[in-house]
Amino acid sequence: MRFEIMARSGRARLGQLWTPHGTVQTPAFMPVGTQGSVKALHPMEVSDTGSRLLIANTYHLWLRPGAELVAEHGGLHAFMRWPHAIATDSGGFQAFSLAERVRVDESGFDFASHLDGSRRRLTPEESMRVQGLLGSDIALQLDICPPANVPRSELIAAVERTTRWAERCLSARKPGQALFGIVQGGTDVDLRCQHAETLARLPLDGLALGGFSVGESPDLMHQALERVVPALDSARPRYLMGVGTPLDLVRAVSVGVDLFDCVMPTRNARNGQAFVSRGRLRLKNARYRTDARPLDETCSCPACSQGFSRAYLRHLYVAGEILGHRLISLHNLHHYASLMASARKAISEGQVEDWVQVMSQRDGAAVDSEVVDG
Amino acid sequence: MRFEIMARSGRARLGQLWTPHGTVQTPAFMPVGTQGSVKALHPMEVSDTGSRLLIANTYHLWLRPGAELVAEHGGLHAFMRWPHAIATDSGGFQAFSLAERVRVDESGFDFASHLDGSRRRLTPEESMRVQGLLGSDIALQLDICPPANVPRSELIAAVERTTRWAERCLSARKPGQALFGIVQGGTDVDLRCQHAETLARLPLDGLALGGFSVGESPDLMHQALERVVPALDSARPRYLMGVGTPLDLVRAVSVGVDLFDCVMPTRNARNGQAFVSRGRLRLKNARYRTDARPLDETCSCPACSQGFSRAYLRHLYVAGEILGHRLISLHNLHHYASLMASARKAISEGQVEDWVQVMSQRDGAAVDSEVVDG
Repeated sequence: MRFEIMARSGRARLGQLWTPHGTVQTPAFMPVGTQGSVKALHPMEVSDTGSRLLIANTYHLWLRPGAELVAEHGGLHAFMRWPHAIATDSGGFQAFSLAERVRVDESGFDFASHLDGSRRRLTPEESMRVQGLLGSDIALQLDICPPANVPRSELIAAVERTTRWAERCLSARKPGQALFGIVQGGTDVDLRCQHAETLARLPLDGLALGGFSVGESPDLMHQALERVVPALDSARPRYLMGVGTPLDLVRAVSVGVDLFDCVMPTRNARNGQAFVSRGRLRLKNARYRTDARPLDETCSCPACSQGFSRAYLRHLYVAGEILGHRLISLHNLHHYASLMASARKAISEGQVEDWVQVMSQRDGAAVDSEVVDG
Repeated sequence: MRFEIMARSGRARLGQLWTPHGTVQTPAFMPVGTQGSVKALHPMEVSDTGSRLLIANTYHLWLRPGAELVAEHGGLHAFMRWPHAIATDSGGFQAFSLAERVRVDESGFDFASHLDGSRRRLTPEESMRVQGLLGSDIALQLDICPPANVPRSELIAAVERTTRWAERCLSARKPGQALFGIVQGGTDVDLRCQHAETLARLPLDGLALGGFSVGESPDLMHQALERVVPALDSARPRYLMGVGTPLDLVRAVSVGVDLFDCVMPTRNARNGQAFVSRGRLRLKNARYRTDARPLDETCSCPACSQGFSRAYLRHLYVAGEILGHRLISLHNLHHYASLMASARKAISEGQVEDWVQVMSQRDGAAVDSEVVDG
């Protein structure tokens, strides 16, 4: 894997990432394909939004259908018919949050599968073995991700173990597979910066920020990002894990983040929520019952350009029709992809400051507000 | 609406149906879009299977989102973005089977909505008004559809009331909307033939066979169809409602049926069942866990031609992923559409007898059997 910064505007970076499955322009948003499918969507639909990199979930695919099975079918790219690049997370976050009877010690996680209760053991070496079998272009190290508001001593312990696990992952990784380290430290900026420096000394291909969006306030997160992101080695791609709303992405791009992932566009779609240029539409709201407009009159996604009205999409959502999930998911992913495309354009033109202002004003408070245009 | 028979082979007919929304080649299978969406599919995907006529459900759309709302949005074609022809059933079957506290008398049905318990009244006139608002190309008359094994007196009463309701529907129908009458009479062939003759005297645009596949054995149904279908006025399209398996369609085409509808291809898909040329695959079966083949190696549908393996589709199904419902639904509808295309080809070549034999042998007992190829 190779990463090159093509242009800068302020602290924002326009980058290019070369992977064995094609190049990725950054800043980029990675759609989430938890179980080997971006929920409700066909891989060609995801590709048509412009996405060239998605992220799948090691924990889920390891338990079902099994990493060996995926490997026998030519790896995850072939299995799920996605020709572009794939990242996989380490499985640690899910082992901790989804599994039952979890024990963590220096060697790794011990837990009971949430599917059948079977005992499993996830170590840095096992995570790398599984990610190697899945054949992703970018693997993530196993890490310790504490929730918000834990004592500093716990943050320090998480940071130190995460570093040791990064070294073990480096030793165990499959040749040719890129590996990103994960910076922890909660909202403790000094700890984060120290950890960033420590990990930068390892031959990791990228640096991810884990442990954000775990319960702290968005303002606290952005205050920390302001100072932590510039402390990440600027030659490597920077990936903010599990974040966030469109405005979160705008703010994080402006301080130098290159990669994002979040379930929000697809999960919210299945809850009837559409991201539009002026905010969010909650389609269950009765105001959309007779609304003949598309979700977003400025949007060029298939759902908006093929004449599907808010009234029809609301009907599909209320009636529980899968086509509703499909069209809103497609629209939301398109919205996120377009936002990243506009970021890249702004950076290449040296206009990122204006872009942040326009995006924040255009979307205004509305981007993350509950209520939106009528 | 105009219907013309272009060729015959045995008792099978190749027909063409001109509607305000395009022509339909018959024999044809109508995908079911109960609530204004063929479940899990985009209208363009349905169209790409070759379908030019689908059927939607008056009862469901009347209750939600409401026929007036659909009319305000330009009718059902515009609302659901389906440019081809649409048929709508009368709503009677659902009022009887889904609704609560149902009363039937000469004027119509009184029932409580299954959605909110509100009292509703469905008469022949109201059904025609609702279907007129939906703007379908083909309306179905309100009828009385008794279950299997009712006494003959009840069948006779159903037949007679259905005739009177056909007359009321004819008087109430929207100008320009085609109206099909519905022949009842259970598996009582004499009663069916008499009813067919009675309805043929009315200026109905087509004749449907209702009250099949309501609990009687398939053999009993096909024995009745052998004698009843030829008794239907041969100048008008003949529509067998709610039937059936691929082999049911083959047998019914061979005795002269022109139109079909059934939820089977889409509903079974959502239950993990795929129709293939040699039978049916139940994807939950462990034998498909590592099966790298497409659903059907002879199939040209997108799911089969884009390299999605049985193993992947099984994984999607077991994991509850919407993409599984999508791809299997697409495949199954394609399978039904291809079956009808092969019927039309066989009839045009005067080879329907061979076609029936090949289809029955190729699919053999397997077409409708539980178990299939490995």
